[in-house]
Amino acid sequence: MFVSGRVKYAVLVIGLVAMAAMTVPGLRAPWITAALWVCLGYFAAEMALKTRQSSHFGRKPPYLGSAEFWWDVLGVVPVPLALIAGLPPEKAWLLASLWILKLATVVPGLSLLGRIIHLEARPLASVFVIFLIVLLLASVAVHLAEGPGQPEKFGTLPLALWWAVTTLTTTGYGDAVPETFVGRSVAGLVMICGLGVFGLWTGILATGFANEHRRREFIRTYELVTRVPFLRTLDAAGVIELTRMLRRQDLAERSVVVRRGRAGDCMFFIASGEVEVQVEPKPIRLAAGSFFGEFALLDGAPRTATVVTTRPTTLLTLDVTDFHAFTAQHPDLARELEAEAARRRAPVKDAGHIVNDADAAQ
Amino acid sequence: MFVSGRVKYAVLVIGLVAMAAMTVPGLRAPWITAALWVCLGYFAAEMALKTRQSSHFGRKPPYLGSAEFWWDVLGVVPVPLALIAGLPPEKAWLLASLWILKLATVVPGLSLLGRIIHLEARPLASVFVIFLIVLLLASVAVHLAEGPGQPEKFGTLPLALWWAVTTLTTTGYGDAVPETFVGRSVAGLVMICGLGVFGLWTGILATGFANEHRRREFIRTYELVTRVPFLRTLDAAGVIELTRMLRRQDLAERSVVVRRGRAGDCMFFIASGEVEVQVEPKPIRLAAGSFFGEFALLDGAPRTATVVTTRPTTLLTLDVTDFHAFTAQHPDLARELEAEAARRRAPVKDAGHIVNDADAAQ
Amino acid sequence: MFVSGRVKYAVLVIGLVAMAAMTVPGLRAPWITAALWVCLGYFAAEMALKTRQSSHFGRKPPYLGSAEFWWDVLGVVPVPLALIAGLPPEKAWLLASLWILKLATVVPGLSLLGRIIHLEARPLASVFVIFLIVLLLASVAVHLAEGPGQPEKFGTLPLALWWAVTTLTTTGYGDAVPETFVGRSVAGLVMICGLGVFGLWTGILATGFANEHRRREFIRTYELVTRVPFLRTLDAAGVIELTRMLRRQDLAERSVVVRRGRAGDCMFFIASGEVEVQVEPKPIRLAAGSFFGEFALLDGAPRTATVVTTRPTTLLTLDVTDFHAFTAQHPDLARELEAEAARRRAPVKDAGHIVNDADAAQ
Amino acid sequence: MFVSGRVKYAVLVIGLVAMAAMTVPGLRAPWITAALWVCLGYFAAEMALKTRQSSHFGRKPPYLGSAEFWWDVLGVVPVPLALIAGLPPEKAWLLASLWILKLATVVPGLSLLGRIIHLEARPLASVFVIFLIVLLLASVAVHLAEGPGQPEKFGTLPLALWWAVTTLTTTGYGDAVPETFVGRSVAGLVMICGLGVFGLWTGILATGFANEHRRREFIRTYELVTRVPFLRTLDAAGVIELTRMLRRQDLAERSVVVRRGRAGDCMFFIASGEVEVQVEPKPIRLAAGSFFGEFALLDGAPRTATVVTTRPTTLLTLDVTDFHAFTAQHPDLARELEAEAARRRAPVKDAGHIVNDADAAQ
Repeated sequence: MFVSGRVKYAVLVIGLVAMAAMTVPGLRAPWITAALWVCLGYFAAEMALKTRQSSHFGRKPPYLGSAEFWWDVLGVVPVPLALIAGLPPEKAWLLASLWILKLATVVPGLSLLGRIIHLEARPLASVFVIFLIVLLLASVAVHLAEGPGQPEKFGTLPLALWWAVTTLTTTGYGDAVPETFVGRSVAGLVMICGLGVFGLWTGILATGFANEHRRREFIRTYELVTRVPFLRTLDAAGVIELTRMLRRQDLAERSVVVRRGRAGDCMFFIASGEVEVQVEPKPIRLAAGSFFGEFALLDGAPRTATVVTTRPTTLLTLDVTDFHAFTAQHPDLARELEAEAARRRAPVKDAGHIVNDADAAQ
Repeated sequence: MFVSGRVKYAVLVIGLVAMAAMTVPGLRAPWITAALWVCLGYFAAEMALKTRQSSHFGRKPPYLGSAEFWWDVLGVVPVPLALIAGLPPEKAWLLASLWILKLATVVPGLSLLGRIIHLEARPLASVFVIFLIVLLLASVAVHLAEGPGQPEKFGTLPLALWWAVTTLTTTGYGDAVPETFVGRSVAGLVMICGLGVFGLWTGILATGFANEHRRREFIRTYELVTRVPFLRTLDAAGVIELTRMLRRQDLAERSVVVRRGRAGDCMFFIASGEVEVQVEPKPIRLAAGSFFGEFALLDGAPRTATVVTTRPTTLLTLDVTDFHAFTAQHPDLARELEAEAARRRAPVKDAGHIVNDADAAQ
Repeated sequence: MFVSGRVKYAVLVIGLVAMAAMTVPGLRAPWITAALWVCLGYFAAEMALKTRQSSHFGRKPPYLGSAEFWWDVLGVVPVPLALIAGLPPEKAWLLASLWILKLATVVPGLSLLGRIIHLEARPLASVFVIFLIVLLLASVAVHLAEGPGQPEKFGTLPLALWWAVTTLTTTGYGDAVPETFVGRSVAGLVMICGLGVFGLWTGILATGFANEHRRREFIRTYELVTRVPFLRTLDAAGVIELTRMLRRQDLAERSVVVRRGRAGDCMFFIASGEVEVQVEPKPIRLAAGSFFGEFALLDGAPRTATVVTTRPTTLLTLDVTDFHAFTAQHPDLARELEAEAARRRAPVKDAGHIVNDADAAQ
Repeated sequence: MFVSGRVKYAVLVIGLVAMAAMTVPGLRAPWITAALWVCLGYFAAEMALKTRQSSHFGRKPPYLGSAEFWWDVLGVVPVPLALIAGLPPEKAWLLASLWILKLATVVPGLSLLGRIIHLEARPLASVFVIFLIVLLLASVAVHLAEGPGQPEKFGTLPLALWWAVTTLTTTGYGDAVPETFVGRSVAGLVMICGLGVFGLWTGILATGFANEHRRREFIRTYELVTRVPFLRTLDAAGVIELTRMLRRQDLAERSVVVRRGRAGDCMFFIASGEVEVQVEPKPIRLAAGSFFGEFALLDGAPRTATVVTTRPTTLLTLDVTDFHAFTAQHPDLARELEAEAARRRAPVKDAGHIVNDADAAQ
């Protein structure tokens, strides 16, 4: 419980709010300092715990010396050092802002974003060079045009550069505004270039993101597909093809997957977790590796039972259109599926009730 | 008529304009208050009607307790409650702004957008974390650099955070502008980061939107394709393939689909609605499930009759290039289509006039 | 020459500059008014000419009553009407700004953009509704938070709406800036929502543009492919496949297509226009329908002759990788191409010189 | 070393910083001028060196008269000319800003960006025309609405145009802000149009970038694939297919490619460079054209040796999923790969140690 995510986030938020409060003279109070020390203590204790756990269970790579370790050190050490060095507390505690870097280690998609920036480094650098060229030439032009009229705002090149940055990024503070015809014409060009630079930037990141995202989704779904026993009869090309059709769906505990009486437009494979098919007299539980919902696709009938997850579950969903496309090309699988469906129907009818929509795969 | 869309929108617009007028001392007038009460009355009456209709026709899920019901309650109840609680009218009526949420229930694409945000939650959260990290670290840096010089604008961390938000989003109010070299350098970095964050955000949403949109379009077109009898001879893989080629086209009543004498570059399947082929002596009507325009593709001749919709109609359009690609791979369908075309030509010539461009499919 | 594009654009630019000058008291002069009348006269004369030409050549749809006609009327009629109605000249001539709408009729891509907006109307409307909901709720929140402190800036809902529009679009004039903690928190949320709305908007337009662009490029290239005699032996599926591989290239007169001695990584089909192969003793001209550059792909040798266009020419380019992929799947075409290449080499050697890189197809 | 990239960049940065310092009266100093002259001297010396080298080695196109030559002239000649012409030094040295154009010649992706702008010229021009139309009509409307109230800000059309540019690009300086109801309504529309124009712009550039990027990546990977002897047995279609699956990876010297004991999810082909497989008793070196890492895919076992690059190396990576998809369709290659793997395992066992993860291809 001690190192659980929620507590950590709460401590982080409290710590950062307290740090912000420290900088406001009216809010500064002993209990604010106390809260900050408590947060620092929590992070130090967490570090100690991680160090001990790391030494007990030798399987994982060691914590000491890892990247995570150094992020944690950056959270714990600087503030006391700054206080010892004699900085006033409201300055020293600003180093607690490094705590926010802890977020970077828990967010799953950051490595994806890092990878995109790495893959697209060349075009991103090209756009940045365009940005720099426009920036410098615009600064010189505006410095020449506006310098004589507004020397305190455009009189030196660094001042003109400041104006050019705020304009090219379309931030537009309005603290320095050209007033001559030439200056305003240059400014108009710079703004339009800003839109173009922005568009290129966005285009590069969007393209990179789309490519990387597709690849990762494919690999993750592929891994899940190989866990479904029923699909092991497929050859490699068939698995690849099916992987492209399936969608992953992560459901929390007690989520309703299908509802009795609704139209059925997809079937489900359970990649991990467990679901409960609510049939009379007793619900049936289906474990990872099972599938359900195929009757609705074979017969076009509405769902005949409600299905609910019993724990966090990952499902692979196959749409009715993809189902028909795939079974048309893999008649063996289609026959096997229908055989399985027939087998499922039979014993259920014997038992005097109908489970039309779910059963466990052997 | 009472609950029709147009009246509802008119009431909504009048109500919101009246609410805005209430807040302007010069415009506040008894008839403004009257207009607001009329709008509130309309929404209350609509609720009552919906409740009664819901109890009469039991097929649909009940209105009472549904999400729509609670949205409607949010429009009707708060203002009277606030007036009873003693708020001055110009404050109480501000709660009428909740009426705008009624728009959310009628816009078709909102569920699509919600789905994208759900599917892309992880990368969006990652970008948001980057946003937060840049925000906090930039605030601390600018607070340190600019705090001594402009204490009333950067003297506390919350003030610096406000500046960082307006800068990172490239809003740039200009109420707080760094003046030192360090502060301006940080600001320049923050603006460029802002463009990057923006680009990533846009890339994620664009990717998600493209994927979801493609999938939905496919499913909707697939459903329409299965309604065309002529295409029922296709196997599942052929239907999938054809679905990828067809484009849906929603036409209002009396729209001209093809014009006599124009070049024909596509043929049409009627998914729903009805069209009229304007031939002499009497126009021919084609119902849903029919197709027309295939002669222009088979012969390369111009359209020989004008075709007009007689009611709101959904057509599926097949371009000439896709037509040739598809019939090359499905010679059976091509033969059938030519047979059908020959049959169509024959009786028409007997009747002494030419219907070259449309006929009903059996 | 009279109605040629360049003269028209020059008249347009002069007219608009003169109109802008009319509004500046210091620049207003008799010759400015004269210039405006000349421009108006030009547009009126153009209209008269178009009307007469339209009656002479009856093939095209009539000019009178067409959309173009009404655009032209909008350019010619309003200014004189306004002057007759007694408006001061500097106001009346502002109607000359309607001249800029003439640009809309000559830009080729506007119909493409109009089509995208039409196709994506639903999701665009959804994002607009989100925009409106955020706008109104943010206005009410900021009106409540900031109204008491800054009544002249947030005291009424219309004032708060103005602030919300400038903030949500990240324009950020800075004329109204929230100062309370609640107001600034709402503002921060609004800015982040602004980035999100922007991202969705961009995503929708990018997706629509990509789809429509791909479809149009395909159709235009397909039309050009069908004009190359050598490719007529391909079946429909082959033409489709090749169309996906080819890239259109529009070249001006006297452009160099390939340069002798350079590495050859593609071959060319001439869709329209003409090229000159610069070989000794006399250059050879190749007309539309011919192809050249195939030796470099078959042999991997450098280009053996420079090829230059003799008039504006449209080429279809086939990359070496696509060339191998395509000929691997269409051995007939590959054989025919090699036979043609052999035939080309032979007579050239007889004539005592080598044309290795281009020849006319029969 | 003299013309190496790093020194050049350092000189460039020092020169530009010195130029900026020249414009600040307080910083202007003799050593600043000296630094600028040194930088100018460096660029002149570089030009002289390039000219001499160009005459020595005649293979490359001549430097004199090339585009690069003229960029270099633009960096060296203007400043002395301006000083001779009698300009004050702080003005004359502003021409040193042309040095930044040297960046344009070294950035690899600029030609890609230029190509996109060339290919998408038509739709970009269309959006620009929309931009101009909105700009002019908005200016006229705001000039009419706000002119009487704020003559010094909206009294002439050029002033109104300036406001329209800053608003349509969402820059929003705030130096001119409409105050009437009509003016603010127009402004709101302009801002929303700004978002739309921006979105279209981004969509066009993103689409163009994605298309061009995909094509270039394909061509570059294809070239590398043809350098791997083992893959020469593939037919053209197979090479194309494999090229679509492979990812290029550029590694610096001494980068770790795979680590012993880690799970193996891909195999590698060496396109250029060299790697070292760290096995006992002596590491094995693999040159360009070899492949390694296939055992992990065939057996599913963890990596059995660490592999490190010995110089800058380009690898082609084949993911496990793509590997299975490809070998399923090319059983010949799969058999050959397994034969090769068996051959690799055998002699290694004889030698008394196991190289399970890498070996040279013959």
